[in-house]
Amino acid sequence: RCFHFCKLPGRVMGIRLLRFTSVVIIVLLLVAGALTALLPTIKDDKLPNSRREPKTQSQSALDSFTLIMQTYNRTDLLLKLLNHYQAIPHLHKVIVVWNNIGEKTPEEMWNSLGPHPVPVVFKVQTVNRMRNRLQNFPDLETKAVLMMDDDTLVSAHDLAFAFSVWQQFPEHIVGFVPRKHISTPSGVYSYGSFELQNPALGNGDQYSMVLIGAAFFHRGYLEDFQQQPEAVYALIDETQNCDDIAMNFLVAKHTGKPSGVFVKPVDIRNLEKDTNSGYSGMWHRAEHLLQRSYCVNKLVNIYDGMPLKYSNIMISQFGFPNYANHKNKM
Amino acid sequence: RCFHFCKLPGRVMGIRLLRFTSVVIIVLLLVAGALTALLPTIKDDKLPNSRREPKTQSQSALDSFTLIMQTYNRTDLLLKLLNHYQAIPHLHKVIVVWNNIGEKTPEEMWNSLGPHPVPVVFKVQTVNRMRNRLQNFPDLETKAVLMMDDDTLVSAHDLAFAFSVWQQFPEHIVGFVPRKHISTPSGVYSYGSFELQNPALGNGDQYSMVLIGAAFFHRGYLEDFQQQPEAVYALIDETQNCDDIAMNFLVAKHTGKPSGVFVKPVDIRNLEKDTNSGYSGMWHRAEHLLQRSYCVNKLVNIYDGMPLKYSNIMISQFGFPNYANHKNKM
Repeated sequence: RCFHFCKLPGRVMGIRLLRFTSVVIIVLLLVAGALTALLPTIKDDKLPNSRREPKTQSQSALDSFTLIMQTYNRTDLLLKLLNHYQAIPHLHKVIVVWNNIGEKTPEEMWNSLGPHPVPVVFKVQTVNRMRNRLQNFPDLETKAVLMMDDDTLVSAHDLAFAFSVWQQFPEHIVGFVPRKHISTPSGVYSYGSFELQNPALGNGDQYSMVLIGAAFFHRGYLEDFQQQPEAVYALIDETQNCDDIAMNFLVAKHTGKPSGVFVKPVDIRNLEKDTNSGYSGMWHRAEHLLQRSYCVNKLVNIYDGMPLKYSNIMISQFGFPNYANHKNKM
Repeated sequence: RCFHFCKLPGRVMGIRLLRFTSVVIIVLLLVAGALTALLPTIKDDKLPNSRREPKTQSQSALDSFTLIMQTYNRTDLLLKLLNHYQAIPHLHKVIVVWNNIGEKTPEEMWNSLGPHPVPVVFKVQTVNRMRNRLQNFPDLETKAVLMMDDDTLVSAHDLAFAFSVWQQFPEHIVGFVPRKHISTPSGVYSYGSFELQNPALGNGDQYSMVLIGAAFFHRGYLEDFQQQPEAVYALIDETQNCDDIAMNFLVAKHTGKPSGVFVKPVDIRNLEKDTNSGYSGMWHRAEHLLQRSYCVNKLVNIYDGMPLKYSNIMISQFGFPNYANHKNKM
């Protein structure tokens, strides 16, 4: 039987209904389309909290890293190092942080000498600041960052191995230069390397920091760095130093574990003697180490506690370079 | 106003009600008591699935380990080793798995030479089986097991360090003897050490097993081992070999990662030449290595796949024994 539909004046009503329904459908489709366009792109920028599998991303973004190299007054070394680093396996892109204020970057020359294995981006800075390299660069597409000083040459073998180690310890700073702090009875901390007394934690030595001038770490820590107390930036700017100590504090606070994992380098070289610029690097300043002890104590104040933890784990590559480097007299 | 209560014949009803209520209360209490007695004791024997903090247990059970040492026909070595191992830091107890069937244990002599730093338990076996050491001994009170062959001497420094490493990698076999398998184009696997070809995974060498005859692992794996297919026990009994390969398969399957973490020993010695018994150990049999390749292939059959994964991480102790063993020419 035909229901109340049929009771209406037949064909006219039918056409109006049809037209109305069509309009409704079209409007709904437009709204749906607009909503889809407004959906945010899902980004997996968060810091790893555990050993959770990475979300599905482009293969290269997961299996490669971005080199960030800050440079000041050593363009000859920069270019020598770029020729080396541009060909490192698993490198995705290079970001050069150009601290030579007012000076043209070598971008033109770089392009004229192409093609190059990976893109190199020159980020021109307005002020010569040590912490310029710790910006959250939008150019970053990979989870992993490799940070290098502009006078440090590390072999491809070391880098490939250290990158694989970082992939197993993504929440740590995985690098080649360990340092430590020690506490004294007065409560004042001091900063140093192996020549400093042991933290008295048993056999051997301990480290509590891995310097970021030759290390891999997760890009999330650059985001994190933007959220630090103003006093941290002031300290780094005042000393033009200690950005790496600050990063170790940040990572240690985040993980509650030792901030770094030390990978013993087979072939690491400091090229600063090779520069024509005559510029020797900040660590030659007389007050350099004293400043770093000063920074440790200031950061403890700022963060209201000492988050750094000791580790004595030293990682080397099994069977490399010496094929039998793991053998013993058993 | 007084309700239907009061309508009932006063005091008699009151007393009956009181009696009834008391009985109900007593019954409830008894039931509650019975239920409490039936509650299972909460044990945290489960294998670690992630880096979750250990539940609250006695301090010593968390910070110490149990040495399990199986022995056959080398009691002189056993006693020499017990004198060394009984004093290792963080040792909780020793379990000696006595495979000398029908022979008296040295327990009397051991007791007469007390006191000793830790308890030593002699577990008399009825059949001389290689896999006797993989029982889930009720004497185990610690999370960590240190398993040692009865001819292997590892220094206290190495053990203290390796134990601290295990505490950071509790789901792995952390030990001093790495081995690997390789696959061949025919699909047949072979077993070996560094003299075997590389798994062709890049620079250097790789390992896919850490032998349990000198290693720390979580006691949960002993429980796990009791749940394996019968064919695994048959294989181990048939060869009197390969229990350690089977354990590596088990661990790799459980974690989905490389089963072991290799800690490079500073001082590890094989004492088998020092024995008066003339007994040399199973690995001198002509067929020993061939058997182990055979076991790898059988286990792949039994488990329907190859779960072992490669690693090239080699861990050493920072600044020990050489105070500056991490320095480089930078």
